[in-house]
Amino acid sequence: MDSGGNFFAIGVDFGTNSVRSLIVDTAEGREVSSGVFNYESGENGVLLDSRDANLARQNPADYIKGFIVSLGAAVRQAKGKSGFDPWKVIGIGIDTTGSTPLPVNKAGIPLALHREFKDELSAQAWLWKDHASYEEAAQITALAKKTREPYLAKCGGTYSSEWFWSKVLHCRRTSPKVFKAAYSWVEAADFIPGFITGNLNPLKLKRGICAAGHKAMYNDDWGGLPSKKFLARLDPQLAGLRDRLYQSTAPSNQVAGYLSRSMARYTGLPEGIPVAVGAFDAHMGAVGAGIKPGTLVKIIGTSTCDMMVSPQSKKLGVIPGICGIVPGSIIPGMYGIEAGQSAVGDIFAWFTGSLCPQDFCHGDAHQNLSVAAAKLKPGQSGLLALDWNNGNRTVLVDPLLTGLLIGQTLQTTAPEIYRALVEATAFGALTIIRRFEEYGVKVNEVVNCGGIAEKNPFLMQTYADVLGRPMKLSASAQTCALGAAIFGAVVGGAYKSAESAQRKMTRVKKEYFRPNPSAAGVYTGIYKLYRELHDAFGTPEYKGGLFRVMKDLIRLREAARK
Amino acid sequence: MDSGGNFFAIGVDFGTNSVRSLIVDTAEGREVSSGVFNYESGENGVLLDSRDANLARQNPADYIKGFIVSLGAAVRQAKGKSGFDPWKVIGIGIDTTGSTPLPVNKAGIPLALHREFKDELSAQAWLWKDHASYEEAAQITALAKKTREPYLAKCGGTYSSEWFWSKVLHCRRTSPKVFKAAYSWVEAADFIPGFITGNLNPLKLKRGICAAGHKAMYNDDWGGLPSKKFLARLDPQLAGLRDRLYQSTAPSNQVAGYLSRSMARYTGLPEGIPVAVGAFDAHMGAVGAGIKPGTLVKIIGTSTCDMMVSPQSKKLGVIPGICGIVPGSIIPGMYGIEAGQSAVGDIFAWFTGSLCPQDFCHGDAHQNLSVAAAKLKPGQSGLLALDWNNGNRTVLVDPLLTGLLIGQTLQTTAPEIYRALVEATAFGALTIIRRFEEYGVKVNEVVNCGGIAEKNPFLMQTYADVLGRPMKLSASAQTCALGAAIFGAVVGGAYKSAESAQRKMTRVKKEYFRPNPSAAGVYTGIYKLYRELHDAFGTPEYKGGLFRVMKDLIRLREAARK
Repeated sequence: MDSGGNFFAIGVDFGTNSVRSLIVDTAEGREVSSGVFNYESGENGVLLDSRDANLARQNPADYIKGFIVSLGAAVRQAKGKSGFDPWKVIGIGIDTTGSTPLPVNKAGIPLALHREFKDELSAQAWLWKDHASYEEAAQITALAKKTREPYLAKCGGTYSSEWFWSKVLHCRRTSPKVFKAAYSWVEAADFIPGFITGNLNPLKLKRGICAAGHKAMYNDDWGGLPSKKFLARLDPQLAGLRDRLYQSTAPSNQVAGYLSRSMARYTGLPEGIPVAVGAFDAHMGAVGAGIKPGTLVKIIGTSTCDMMVSPQSKKLGVIPGICGIVPGSIIPGMYGIEAGQSAVGDIFAWFTGSLCPQDFCHGDAHQNLSVAAAKLKPGQSGLLALDWNNGNRTVLVDPLLTGLLIGQTLQTTAPEIYRALVEATAFGALTIIRRFEEYGVKVNEVVNCGGIAEKNPFLMQTYADVLGRPMKLSASAQTCALGAAIFGAVVGGAYKSAESAQRKMTRVKKEYFRPNPSAAGVYTGIYKLYRELHDAFGTPEYKGGLFRVMKDLIRLREAARK
Repeated sequence: MDSGGNFFAIGVDFGTNSVRSLIVDTAEGREVSSGVFNYESGENGVLLDSRDANLARQNPADYIKGFIVSLGAAVRQAKGKSGFDPWKVIGIGIDTTGSTPLPVNKAGIPLALHREFKDELSAQAWLWKDHASYEEAAQITALAKKTREPYLAKCGGTYSSEWFWSKVLHCRRTSPKVFKAAYSWVEAADFIPGFITGNLNPLKLKRGICAAGHKAMYNDDWGGLPSKKFLARLDPQLAGLRDRLYQSTAPSNQVAGYLSRSMARYTGLPEGIPVAVGAFDAHMGAVGAGIKPGTLVKIIGTSTCDMMVSPQSKKLGVIPGICGIVPGSIIPGMYGIEAGQSAVGDIFAWFTGSLCPQDFCHGDAHQNLSVAAAKLKPGQSGLLALDWNNGNRTVLVDPLLTGLLIGQTLQTTAPEIYRALVEATAFGALTIIRRFEEYGVKVNEVVNCGGIAEKNPFLMQTYADVLGRPMKLSASAQTCALGAAIFGAVVGGAYKSAESAQRKMTRVKKEYFRPNPSAAGVYTGIYKLYRELHDAFGTPEYKGGLFRVMKDLIRLREAARK
């Protein structure tokens, strides 16, 4: 029908601390109602371990309760609004954080829901930001390089401790009992659709290409998952697991199943509503922000996700340093391309938390410093920073990098440094855009979403000036849930494709940030200096040998802390 | 007699904000009494100009009143103590800041004391830290390089805006009336001895080698001052002035004159006491701290002076980057060698003033941060800084350098950065020592004095660890005045030489800071990284081209501020 009609779609967005259900009309994507549930386990939903600061897990029971409570609330709230009726809901889409894999039994039930394992941290969902598996990640990277297998070609050349196989292997090594009890492992993005539709059998479960392709080295080019031979060299038992994981994968315009009777009853919806195959929040967020070929969607928060799509009809080679290129992971029929910066908001939060002088720390320090920083002219402070306080994800793919600040005098002020840090993240963003374009992925438009994009006009103006491009803002404040709802609309038959649904259901705000030509000119010069530092400290090939300075300092730091 | 006997000597130390008179016994250099006078003009004795932040002048009337009041107080206070009697005072020594030149008339009277010029800023004393003449300094450096004259060979290759000729030339350009009225220009270090002995005639005034050699490019190797030809290329009228300036120079073991009847009456001393030729405070301070061949004296305050002596019998070539090598400027018969760091205490003050978070800014921020920083292990923070927030005096002689901090993460704390800044100044200090030793000036011992050395044991321990040497402390808290008093004792005949006087009258404290071998080992590794950054950003020869990064940022900064 492709008009949307007078129907409704639902997107359910499982975040790090809460789950949000959003009901939108399928004609224009307008929000009818929403419901939120804050996870009840651990600290703000995250299970921690005082003995291992890298560990971060979640209780899958929170997901189930969160789905029921948040969606039930949204449905109740929607009744009588905009012609809403539960019978007019045509589809549901799901997005979650990732890679967040859970060990499950033969029936697909999470081990964490068994009495035997309920207090076992390794039986819970291994949250995306769990870094306990850093040694396993390094081992996987080394093995792929040594064996010259192509498995890292689609994920930037370095396997991460945040990803599927690192976590499964770490469980094998540190919790053999849980590993043995696990018949299979399922990403949260696949578990939720399976659970609410009653299709949990791990061998039949409809698993999404998004998690598989970006995090589990799944690619049709090499026949799906990495070979048994490769996995056996990591651990013989991983090879056996391979047959009980991804057999095939699907994009989110496919139906994972139909809302089960019990879930329908709990949420106040009718049974049998189609549920789309799940995907990650950033990918769904890009859809909700209107991603299309030529449009870069930047999700700016503590870190960033920089997402693009490129038609699969056009051959796309390896883009060095881009952390994921997966067919259909964002829009079916297109390569989903994922890049990002390891820290953006986190850098500003570090500065205000650790170095904010008294004059600026009353009330909202970010606001105070932004107001003062906005009064400065580009270049005026003489400062330049690298945005590597948490390493560099794109394009260097190197967690062992650190921050740098240069140009300080005896007169340097806190707002000047704050501005230099904002500029540094903008230079990092520009470096990603340049890399895209160098490899044939043209960036015609930049659409921003996420908390910082919404709240900080100084930052957005600085980005416009540094990037030399207009900075647009997604109209929706809930792009992830909206993106999921778009796939709900597609599987519900309101649109033939995600693209046609996007054209009706997404939009950008009328007001956007335009580059100031004179500021952009100054930043062109400063960016050249940023690249000098970037290449000198970030690439081993750079002449002069400064690459080892950050590495040696980290080595000395780790030695001193032992 | 060389025993000191039961006699007394006086040192009068003219600082930036006050003057201090110290009476010591000549046998052991022990303090009998002292008197202080805070200058009354301007802000803490400094005349400022709201239209030019670089300007800093002093009213010479403050010097005269300060001499009388502080010395009078010291004499009154000493009476009856340790067998003191004014008749037992055998000599007076004088030190001042510098280069601090005053325009004077034909009789040697400062123009500032004439009614016509008393409110004219350019007729006052041009205080050492006056930087208004930076363009003239650059012009002098350029001319010396262009004409291949050797004049900068003894002052590190770059002429400073703080120095004699820059100031005189700036006066010629900006206050022609004052320049024309000035028959001559006299350093404060020469003016005071002339004034209190009644020998002010500029052509007969006994002028010290210290100011002449370190600041006015005076050297016997090229026949005294720079040639008339050279000066005429700066300004024809400077050539004419040459004949009315330094005809010869003397070290401080020579008598400048004898205390005049009027000054004797004002201060309560007998007429005719010999007064030594004046010198700069840092040089006299080095004498008071016991400088001798092999002993480096570090005066650590807002910046540092690093002083050494080397016998003139031993040939000493140019030491690149050392800002002054002048025969007899510290100890007669030895080369006085002056190096220094442009900012030390100033860097810590910048950090506490601009970036001190609330937790540490209650009470004494330096104390709070030092206590926390002292608990860290070397290398533990992963941070490394360059100590260039105010440029680099030794060994790079480049004011157009800036600070750098590398290694910050999202966990970096304020005490970690404070420690990195302290370590950076220690690495800068080590770089100076290495340069001395590379050119044959062996450093067997380091004696520290100045406010920071006295007050901050954490800093001194860090210096011991980084330098890998014991850090000793001068026993006297008034090394400058004590050094001046030592020359008073010499011209009074108590000792044949400054060295023999020093052996009796100076000492170091029994307690000193010893290097911790394991910390010193870690710092050896970190210093290598410091040198990488130092050479990469500080020397144009370094491969990789990073030298221009700081330069370009300064250029952009200045352009933005216009």
